This record gives sequence, C-alpha cells and structure tokens, in this order.
Amino acid sequence: MNILKGTPRCDGFRMPAEFEPHKGCWMIWPERTDIWRCGAKLAQEVFVKVAESISQFEKVTMCVSHNQYFNARMKLPAQIRVLEMSSNDAWMRDVGPTFVVNDDGEVRAVRWKFNAWGGIYFPWDKDELIALKIADIENIDCYEAPIVLEGGSIDTDGEGTLITTEECLLNPNRNPGFTKQQIEQVLKDYLGVEKIIWLKRGVYNDETSGHVDNLCRFVKPAEVVLTWTFDKNDPQYQISRENYEILLKETDAKGRKFKIHMIHQPSPIHLTEEDVSTIDFAEKTLRKPPGYRLPASYVNFYFANGALIVPIYNDPKDEEALAKFREIFPERKIVGVYAKEILLGGGAIHCITLQQPLGVKRC
Amino acid sequence: MNILKGTPRCDGFRMPAEFEPHKGCWMIWPERTDIWRCGAKLAQEVFVKVAESISQFEKVTMCVSHNQYFNARMKLPAQIRVLEMSSNDAWMRDVGPTFVVNDDGEVRAVRWKFNAWGGIYFPWDKDELIALKIADIENIDCYEAPIVLEGGSIDTDGEGTLITTEECLLNPNRNPGFTKQQIEQVLKDYLGVEKIIWLKRGVYNDETSGHVDNLCRFVKPAEVVLTWTFDKNDPQYQISRENYEILLKETDAKGRKFKIHMIHQPSPIHLTEEDVSTIDFAEKTLRKPPGYRLPASYVNFYFANGALIVPIYNDPKDEEALAKFREIFPERKIVGVYAKEILLGGGAIHCITLQQPLGVKRC
Repeated sequence: MNILKGTPRCDGFRMPAEFEPHKGCWMIWPERTDIWRCGAKLAQEVFVKVAESISQFEKVTMCVSHNQYFNARMKLPAQIRVLEMSSNDAWMRDVGPTFVVNDDGEVRAVRWKFNAWGGIYFPWDKDELIALKIADIENIDCYEAPIVLEGGSIDTDGEGTLITTEECLLNPNRNPGFTKQQIEQVLKDYLGVEKIIWLKRGVYNDETSGHVDNLCRFVKPAEVVLTWTFDKNDPQYQISRENYEILLKETDAKGRKFKIHMIHQPSPIHLTEEDVSTIDFAEKTLRKPPGYRLPASYVNFYFANGALIVPIYNDPKDEEALAKFREIFPERKIVGVYAKEILLGGGAIHCITLQQPLGVKRC
Repeated sequence: MNILKGTPRCDGFRMPAEFEPHKGCWMIWPERTDIWRCGAKLAQEVFVKVAESISQFEKVTMCVSHNQYFNARMKLPAQIRVLEMSSNDAWMRDVGPTFVVNDDGEVRAVRWKFNAWGGIYFPWDKDELIALKIADIENIDCYEAPIVLEGGSIDTDGEGTLITTEECLLNPNRNPGFTKQQIEQVLKDYLGVEKIIWLKRGVYNDETSGHVDNLCRFVKPAEVVLTWTFDKNDPQYQISRENYEILLKETDAKGRKFKIHMIHQPSPIHLTEEDVSTIDFAEKTLRKPPGYRLPASYVNFYFANGALIVPIYNDPKDEEALAKFREIFPERKIVGVYAKEILLGGGAIHCITLQQPLGVKRC
C-alpha cells in the first residue's frame, strides 16, 4: 500500500454511489461496555443478524479485537470473514476509508481525520488507524484528506453530487479552521464530486451532529429519501421541512431536479432506565440519561448487492417504510432487521457497515 | 472459514514441499523486549531486510500488533502488506498453519496445538490463535490436528515423505500421551504423507528441542541438505554424523535413496554480555546466559518463488554455504541476509517465515 500525495480528483477517481456494485462489506464487532448495555452481548447478537443478512448478498468482513476474536468467530457463520482489528467502538461507516474508483476499474481509499464525532467519546486512537489498515489489507493505495470527516456525514449519487448537513460539516467541533468554501473544495478534491448540496440540520438529537445518513440518502441519481414526520409538535418536523424545501429548489450536478420520497420516522423512542442500567460508567464517555430521545430512522439502511438492509424497530411504521422501499426498489430484496439495540448505541445499520466498491472498467 | 472435521488425508489433501510455488509469505513483527535486545529495534531492522528480500520474489504479509502497526507500516516498503495480528512472539513458522493442497488447486489449513516449544516461553495465548486467524483472512477452511507441533519441526518433499527429529516430536514436553506410532499416524492423516523419516537429535543447543528445519531440509525430492561440521570436538559432530547414517540407509516414500549435501555450519557463535544486557527481565521467559552457544545454521533458509533466502553470519563459512546453494539451485537466485540478530532470539530465516502455497490444478 502506498500513501498517495495528490488528490483523487486529479488522479481521475470519484466516490461511487452506495447502490453501485460492491466487492463486499466491512463491519466492526461491538465490545465497549461503557457504550453497549449488558457487556455488549445484545448488540453483538444484532450485529450477527446484520452481518448474516448482508452476507446473503455480498462478502462480509467482521473486524474484531484479539480478545473477542474467538467468540466472534464462533458466533458468526462460516461465510463471514473475521479479522483481528483494534478499534475504539463499532461504527465502521465513520472510521473506515471512503473508497474511490476510476474508469479503469481501480479502487483507492481516502483516509479522513477522525476525532470521535467532535470528541464526545474518548479515546479514538485505535479508530484513527482503521482506514489505513483496511487499505493495507486490501492492497489498495490510500490518500490522506486534510479534514475531520465521518463516512456517515456524506452521501453521493456517484454522478458528481454530494449531500451533507451544515450541522455536521460546519460544526466547530470538527474543522474549526476551515471555511465552508474550503470544506467544499476538499470534498470536491477527495471525492471527485462537482456539486455539494448543503442540508441544514440532521435528525433531532442525533449525537453525531446530524449525520446525513440518518436523514437523507440517494436511492438513485436525482432521487432521494428523506426522514419525515407529519407531527408538527415533533422537533423533527421543522428539521425535515426545512431540508425538504432545500431539496425542492436544488438541482444535482447534472442539473436534474430531485424526486423526494418522504419516509415517515418510527414513533419516538426514548431511553429507559433498563436500557442504561447495565452500561458501564467511564469518565470520558458521553452517558445519555433515561428519557433521552433516540434518533431512530429508517433511512439508515445499507445497500447490499441486490438488496436493501433496513433497520426496523417493532413499530407500526415499520411496514409503511418497508412497503415504500419495495416500491422504490422493485429490483432489490428488502430485508428488515430489528435494530433497536444499535440505536441504543447511537446509530443504525448504515452506521455500522461500509461497502467496498467493486472496481468496474468503463469503456 | 469452516472448521473441518475429518482429516486432510481422507479429503485428498497433502502438504506440498516448500520449493513448490507460493502464493506468498507470512511473517510476524518482533516486539518482545524480554526476548529481543534493544527493545527489539535491531531485530525489526533484520525482519525488514528479510521481508524486503522475499518481497522481490513473492507477496509478503507482515503481521503486527496494533501498537506497532504504524511503525511497521512506515518501516516496511509499500509492496509488503501489513496486517494487525496479536502474537506472543515472532516465529511464524511455528505458530502459523500448515497449508495443505489437493489436485484441484484447493488450499486448506491445518492448525496444530501449540505450547511454546514445550512451555519455555510464557504465555502463548495469542500465538495459539494465529493459525486460525490466517485461515480466516484467506477464506480457507481449517482442520484442527490433535497434537502439539510447530512448523519448524517437520519438512516434506511434497511426494509423501516427511523428515522430523525424535528429539522434538517424541519429547515429553510436547505430546506426553502419544506413542511414536500414534504421532506417525497423525502426521500421515494431517499432512497426507506416507513415510516418516525419524532423525535423532537436532542442532546442538537448539532450544526448540531440535527442530529439523535448522538441521536438515529437502531441496528436491530425494535430495536433502544436512548441517555439518568436520570438527570432531564439536558436539554437533556426533549429531550430524548420526543423522547422516540414518539418511544414508533410508529411502523416501517412493523408494529412492537420498542425495545428501553437507552444509558446513558457521563457526560457533556464543552469546556475549552485550547481546543480553539490553534484554528485559521477565519472570517466565527463558533467559540464556552470556557464553551460551547459539544454534547457528545455514540450513534455516526460506524458499521464495525463484529464490533462496539464506541466513548468513559474517563468517568465513558464509561463502562456502552460498556457493553450495548456487550449485544445488542453478535455477534460483541465492540471497544471503545477515541474520545474527534473529539467531540471538533463537532462530533464523526459516523460523520467521511461512509460505502459503499456490493452489495448482493437476490434470
């Protein structure tokens, strides 16, 4: 693996859309007992289900610490590759590399700076190396981008357009020395995009400072899904409304208007006393109190080859969301996985997964 | 990766000779400061040289702890893959899997039990998992053999013959409950060999209990190299002589007599005060005293694709050994690497490397 100077844009590389073909999917085994309740054992069960579901459609690699290697190996089916890798937590989307591709079918990696979502979880020394280690394992060369960024804070159509939120990318807890224009330039240089669409705020109470992957996602070029609620008393209402207005007026890099699918959020889910009582105390770990409203969203799904893996919450809205996805993706198998346990840790299925694109030669 | 019941022999698999084609080579970064002097920094330099040399001929993967990952990545050339893997020390030959192949070009792994060369270094919990982790990374299925065995204690011609030493394989510190016949049967079942040739003792003062890879190696079918000395006052003389007599009388699995090349050992090398003064003390780590005679050998070489990587010692005998290898292998590039630093830790180039065979379809 070479660490490359220059930028993907200059070298003819671009970030593909997640709905383009994958070589496989990367995940991290959850272990932190100060983040995941019951010694992380319930989260591990759900991660197994997510990994199993994805592995029906593409190769999955689960990264795990030495201490949990044997346990993870025994609990995961044989078709899943289990790989030792140290981490500070289990959010592969945010700590893994962003893969970029060129028209010759080559794949490279971009390693962002990482500071644990603005420094809210400590430490992050192991997470910082994961992007590099993955590039190394895969024998692919790696660019090092000059800004703090997590994979969950950006989404692309693979055709020159990127969506993100101001709440996250312009947050002083990420890149205080950078102007909006400078950040735009870095995104263009390192992801090979032409146009950035700035949504305002992410999902209400999302501790990531409003990652776009919990709010709004490309489902096809010029077509997005947006977390929605019709409840005007819900703080999410104004957030979704405001972003909807932006999308309505915007065009993508190719000048197309957006088709916007509203995906109604599940009923609000709040942390209970039982949810938090078995979480370890740690001095520098953000501890959410009972009663805390969690940022539950159906938009936090993962595109697997030929499928969509969707978080569900045992909520009356589950079926509505799944039906909508079946309508949007008649060609994909829609697979719901009960994901409340991931939500308790702060995210959903997209947050814990990372696609590695298949290099595809374009004539 | 599946953990397989049954045996390689039943499934049509055999251990290929090291001189057959490789997919690549596995190594482990040395780190233990109670084994390697000067914080292992001198050993790391030599491991870099060995890895660099091999990487001219085949792909090399260096396994390294999280703590040393970035350092190893920076010190190794880009063409070498660096991979996080926990270990208790750096002897990949002995802790990695034994790969077996079949005639359809499939490759599988055998995981032996491991007890740190009869329990002389403590602990060995991390080393025990390395064979499994490597099979997992490579997506190859793995057998679990029922005996303690290190890769350095066996050598095969790939045509049904295995050589080993009684000093090691029949040592009560390895498999006290097994008879010689039972061990023979396990070797036949798990390595797909037909005939085991039992040499007596390994190189004088070899703390591995006389690993065969430091003493005698197949260079071609029915052709071996044997560590030698003409000095009758050297305790090695009787050892080599005795083994020579055995080889002279033996035939291989196909009934062929052996051509035996004597490779004169380097002049005896003894530990100095300086060699040991910067080694950390650890309660359960064997500490060799100044004056200790080290088991230096030229036979501890590594076959890379198209090359032979040979340990040399800045000794007058170096050139004689290299010339002999050039004569035996006119088709291979003979590369000497100064390896005294590895010897200080207890072995040489073969001990720290492990070939992964290329699956080759045989019509």
